[in-house]
Amino acid sequence: MKLSRYLPILEWGREYRRETLVSDLMAAVIVTIMLIPQSLAYAMLAGLPPETGLYASMAPLVLYAIFGTGRTLAVGPVAVISLMTAVAAGRVADEGSMGYATAALTLAALSGVILMAMGVFRMGFVANFLSHPVISGFITAAGLLIAAGQMRHVLGTQAGGHTGVEIAASLVTTIGEANLWTLAVAIPALVFLAWARKGAADLLWRLGLPRFYASLIGRAAPLLAVAASIAAVKLFDLSARGVATVGDIPAGLPPFTIPAFDPALISALIGPALLLSAVGFVESVSVAQTLAAKRRQRIDPDQELIGLGAANIGASVSGGFPVTGGFARSVVNFDAGAATPAAGAFTAIGIGLASLFLTPWLSDLPVAVLAATIIVAVLSLADFPIIKRTWAYSKSDGAAMTGTILATLLVGVEAGILTGVALSIGLHLYKTSRPHTAVVGLVPGTEHFRNVDRHAVTLAPKLITLRVDESLYFPNARYLEDRVLELAATQPEARHFVLMCPAVNAIDASALESLEVINQRLKEAGLSFHLSEVKGPVMDRLKRSGFLNHLTGKVFLSQYEAFMELGG
Amino acid sequence: MKLSRYLPILEWGREYRRETLVSDLMAAVIVTIMLIPQSLAYAMLAGLPPETGLYASMAPLVLYAIFGTGRTLAVGPVAVISLMTAVAAGRVADEGSMGYATAALTLAALSGVILMAMGVFRMGFVANFLSHPVISGFITAAGLLIAAGQMRHVLGTQAGGHTGVEIAASLVTTIGEANLWTLAVAIPALVFLAWARKGAADLLWRLGLPRFYASLIGRAAPLLAVAASIAAVKLFDLSARGVATVGDIPAGLPPFTIPAFDPALISALIGPALLLSAVGFVESVSVAQTLAAKRRQRIDPDQELIGLGAANIGASVSGGFPVTGGFARSVVNFDAGAATPAAGAFTAIGIGLASLFLTPWLSDLPVAVLAATIIVAVLSLADFPIIKRTWAYSKSDGAAMTGTILATLLVGVEAGILTGVALSIGLHLYKTSRPHTAVVGLVPGTEHFRNVDRHAVTLAPKLITLRVDESLYFPNARYLEDRVLELAATQPEARHFVLMCPAVNAIDASALESLEVINQRLKEAGLSFHLSEVKGPVMDRLKRSGFLNHLTGKVFLSQYEAFMELGG
Repeated sequence: MKLSRYLPILEWGREYRRETLVSDLMAAVIVTIMLIPQSLAYAMLAGLPPETGLYASMAPLVLYAIFGTGRTLAVGPVAVISLMTAVAAGRVADEGSMGYATAALTLAALSGVILMAMGVFRMGFVANFLSHPVISGFITAAGLLIAAGQMRHVLGTQAGGHTGVEIAASLVTTIGEANLWTLAVAIPALVFLAWARKGAADLLWRLGLPRFYASLIGRAAPLLAVAASIAAVKLFDLSARGVATVGDIPAGLPPFTIPAFDPALISALIGPALLLSAVGFVESVSVAQTLAAKRRQRIDPDQELIGLGAANIGASVSGGFPVTGGFARSVVNFDAGAATPAAGAFTAIGIGLASLFLTPWLSDLPVAVLAATIIVAVLSLADFPIIKRTWAYSKSDGAAMTGTILATLLVGVEAGILTGVALSIGLHLYKTSRPHTAVVGLVPGTEHFRNVDRHAVTLAPKLITLRVDESLYFPNARYLEDRVLELAATQPEARHFVLMCPAVNAIDASALESLEVINQRLKEAGLSFHLSEVKGPVMDRLKRSGFLNHLTGKVFLSQYEAFMELGG
Repeated sequence: MKLSRYLPILEWGREYRRETLVSDLMAAVIVTIMLIPQSLAYAMLAGLPPETGLYASMAPLVLYAIFGTGRTLAVGPVAVISLMTAVAAGRVADEGSMGYATAALTLAALSGVILMAMGVFRMGFVANFLSHPVISGFITAAGLLIAAGQMRHVLGTQAGGHTGVEIAASLVTTIGEANLWTLAVAIPALVFLAWARKGAADLLWRLGLPRFYASLIGRAAPLLAVAASIAAVKLFDLSARGVATVGDIPAGLPPFTIPAFDPALISALIGPALLLSAVGFVESVSVAQTLAAKRRQRIDPDQELIGLGAANIGASVSGGFPVTGGFARSVVNFDAGAATPAAGAFTAIGIGLASLFLTPWLSDLPVAVLAATIIVAVLSLADFPIIKRTWAYSKSDGAAMTGTILATLLVGVEAGILTGVALSIGLHLYKTSRPHTAVVGLVPGTEHFRNVDRHAVTLAPKLITLRVDESLYFPNARYLEDRVLELAATQPEARHFVLMCPAVNAIDASALESLEVINQRLKEAGLSFHLSEVKGPVMDRLKRSGFLNHLTGKVFLSQYEAFMELGG
C-alpha cells in the first residue's frame, strides 16, 4: 500500500483490462496527431531546434505515467513554460548555440530536482499561495506576450524584443519587411485553426458522424493545416519565395545524455528554475484537479510534484526542455477517452514513431503555421471578462490581477509571476492587518449583541464591548492594541472592557503579547480587561500560557453573562 | 492642523513652557553623558572612525525632533543597525578606506529615502509583517553575534570572521595572543558596567539620595568607567603595553557633504538598505509605542517613517551612518524626565559640545571599554526565557523564532531577518491553508450545533453540514474543495450539503471560484449546496457576484432552519 503511494502505476496498473487498453490506444492516436505540430511549435518558442519538442514529449510522458496521479494528465512542453525557458536560457547564452541547449537541459534538471524535493517534503501546499485571479491574469498576459512574440513568424519579418512594449514597437517598425507569401500561408492557417477548435467537430456532426467521433476527429483538424501547408510549400516552391520552413529535422530517438554539472550555470539558473517549477506545478495541478473531479477521482498534490519532477528529469537526460501538464493536450486526452496514464505512455510511443519516420516529411512545414498553432492555443486560454468581474467582487483581488498583468506585459513573465505572488500575499496580509471590529450593544428583548453602527442597541455606561471579526495574529496584533486603547480613551467613565471573540479562530504568540499589553495599559487607565465567547481550542491554548493569570478581569462563556455582570 | 501632522514639532512646540525646558535639559545632560562612549562604540562596530558616531548623534536627533512623533524617542546609532552597516559596506569596500565611508553615507541616504517614501505612501503597516517572536529571536541572536564579534577587543587579539561559527572559531584559535593588560582593563569594565545598570542607582539610593536622582546619576555611571580607564591608560602607560586605544579624534562639528550619486554603488546597496530600514523601523516603532503608551500618548507609524527618514538623510549629509530610535537611550531619556523631542535636540547640542571640546581627552580611551559597553548593552536585550515560552504556546511561532535565531547566528543578520520574514509569513499562510473544519450535528433539546467529534449530537441521514472555522481565501480555497468533496464521497445517501459560515469573515475571489466548483461538483454527485449563518458583510459581497444565481440550494439565516428544512 505504501509503495503504490509513490508509484501510482501500481494502483491503476492492477486493474488494467482490454477495454482500458482500447480506450487508451485510441486517445493516444488522437493526442499524438495533435502533439506533433505543437511539440515543434513549442520547441521553437523555447528557442530550441524543433526535434527537442518531440524528445520532450517522450520520456517525460512515460515517467509521469509511472509516478503521477492524474489519470488523464498529458505532460509535455507548454507555451508559458517554453517562453520562460527561452527567457532564462537567453540570459546565459545565445539562441542556437551549444550553451543555450545546455542551459535548457540544466533548467529541466533543476526543475526536476526542485519539484521532486518539494514532493518528498510534502510542500504541495505552496501552490495555494497564488490566488486564482493572479493565475488567471498571468495566463492571459503571458498568452498575449507569446502571441505578440509569434507575430514575426506570421509576418515573416525579423522583429525582436523581449518585453511587450519592445515587441510591439519592433513589429510596427519592421512591418515594411513583411513577406506576402508568408502571410498568405499564415492567415488561412490562423483562421482555420481558430475555427477548427469548435467548428470542425460541429461540421462533422452535421455531416452525420456521431458526436463522439465528430469531436475526436475534429481534434485532429490541425493535421489538415499541417498537410495542406506542406503541400503548398512544395507546390508553389514557397521556401524560395521567402517563406521560412522548419528545415531538416534529424530522424531518430532522443539521445541519452547526462547534463554536465556546472556550478556557475546552476547558480545562474536556479532562480528561474524555481519560478518555472512553481508556475508549471500550479498550472498542472489546476488541470489535473479539474479533470480528476469530472470522474470523481482525486489527485495527490505532493505525489504530483514527484511525478512532474520525474518527468523533468527525464526531459533533461533525453535532450528535451522543461515540461509540465498541459491544458489543451490533457483535455483532448480526456475527451478522447483516455482511462489511465498508459495513454500518455502510448502517446510517447506514437511521438517516438513520428520522430523515427515522419520527420523527413515535416521539413517543408512553414514556421508560420507553427506560429499560428501557438497563437490560437494561447489566446484561447486568455480570459478577459474575468478581469471586470473580479474588480466588481473584490478590489484587492482585482488589483493583484491587474498588477500581475501589467508586470507580465511590461517587464516579462518572471517579473509577472513574482509580482503576482507578492501582491497576492501582500494584499492578503494588508486586509488581515485591518480586521473588521465592531463596538456592540444588547439588542433589546433578546440575548444577542450587534454593531452599534448598524442596529438600535442598548449600551451600558461603565462597559465597552468590542467584537473583533478576525483571528488574532501578528499582522493585526498592533492594530488591535491601537483600537482597544483608542476606544478606552474616548470613554473615560468606563470601568470594564470586554473583547468579544466568537470569530477568533486562533491567537498566535504575537497577538498573545498584544493582549498582555492591552491588559496592562487598560489596568493603568483604570479598566478591567475581560474576554467573552472564546472558542474551545483557543481557550485550551490560552490556558497553556500565563495570560489568564495576568488577566485583570474574567473570561465569560457568553457576552450576555458579561453584560449582565459588568453592565450594571 | 494638516501641516502639524507632517511637522509634529508644531504641536508640542506650541505648549512649550519653562518647566518643560528644565525637564528636557536635565534629560539631555544625562543622555549626552551616556551617549558619548556609546556613539564611539557603535561607530567602531560599524567599522567607521569614532567621530562618525558623534556626528550620527547630532543632525539626526534634530531632524527627528522636527518630524518625529515619539516624544521621548532618542535617535542615533544602534547596535544591530551598526552591524548591518558594517556587513553591507564591507561587501563593497575595505574597512577604513574612502569607499567604505562613502558606502556608509550612501546606505544612510538610501535608508532615509526609503523610509520617507514609505511614510508618504502610508506603508507603516508593513512593520506588522514581522511577528513578535521573530523580532525577539532576531534581537537575541544579533546581540550574541555582536557580543561575540566584540570579544576580540576584550582579549586584545586579531580574531576575525563574519558568521557566528567563524567568529567563535577565530576567537579560539587566536586566544594565545590575548593581551593581559587589555583583559585587565576590559574585565573590570564589563563587571562594573553590568552591575551599574541596576546596582549604581540602588547604591546611591541606599546612600541617601532620593530615588529619582539616584536613578538619574546611576545612569551616568558609564562615565566613571570611561574616566577611570583613561586615567589607567595614562598612569600605567598602557598603550605602550599593547592596550588599543581610540586614538586621536578630530575635534569639530560634522562636515556638511552631499554623498556622490553613484548608480553602481546604489544598486549594490539598495537591498541591504531595504533590510536595514525595515529592521530600524520595526525596532524604533516598538520602542516609541512602548514609551508613548506609558504616558497615554500615541504615535503615528507613518509619520514615524518620515521622522526616521529625515534623520537618516541628516546622517548622510553630516558624515554619519544609518540611525534609528534606540531602546536603551530612549528609556534613559524617558526615565530622566524628557517631556518633548526638544530633549533630543538639546542632546544633539551636548554631543556637539563634546565633539568640539571633549575629544582630546578621549584619545586614550581603551577600545576594550567601548567593547564592554557594547557587550553589556546588547546582551541586556537578549531574551532567552521567551524562547521556551513561545514553543510551549505555539509550535509554529517557536519554529519561526528558532529558524531566525539559527539563520542569524550561522549565516548573518541579513539572512536572519529575511528568514524571519519568510518563516513568519510562510508559516502563517500554511496554518491558514489548513483551516479547522467540523462536521456538526444538532445538540438534542437545543438549537445549537456542535462538532460530532466532541459532542453527542443528532445527525440527519440526508444532510451533511460542515462548519468551517476560518475566512475563505486563496490559501485555503483548494483545501475546502477537497474537504467538501471528500465528505460527500463518504456519504452517498446524502442529498444536501450545508456549509455553515459563522466564522467566515470574508470570501475572496479565489474562494468564490472554489464555491462555484463545489456547487458544480456536488450537483454532478446529486447533492444540493446550501450556506448557513453567513455574515452580513459577506452576504453583501456574494450578492454582487453571480454565485447566488448558480447556487443549487438556499442561504439559511440560521443552521437550525437549515436542519429543520433539509434534515427531514
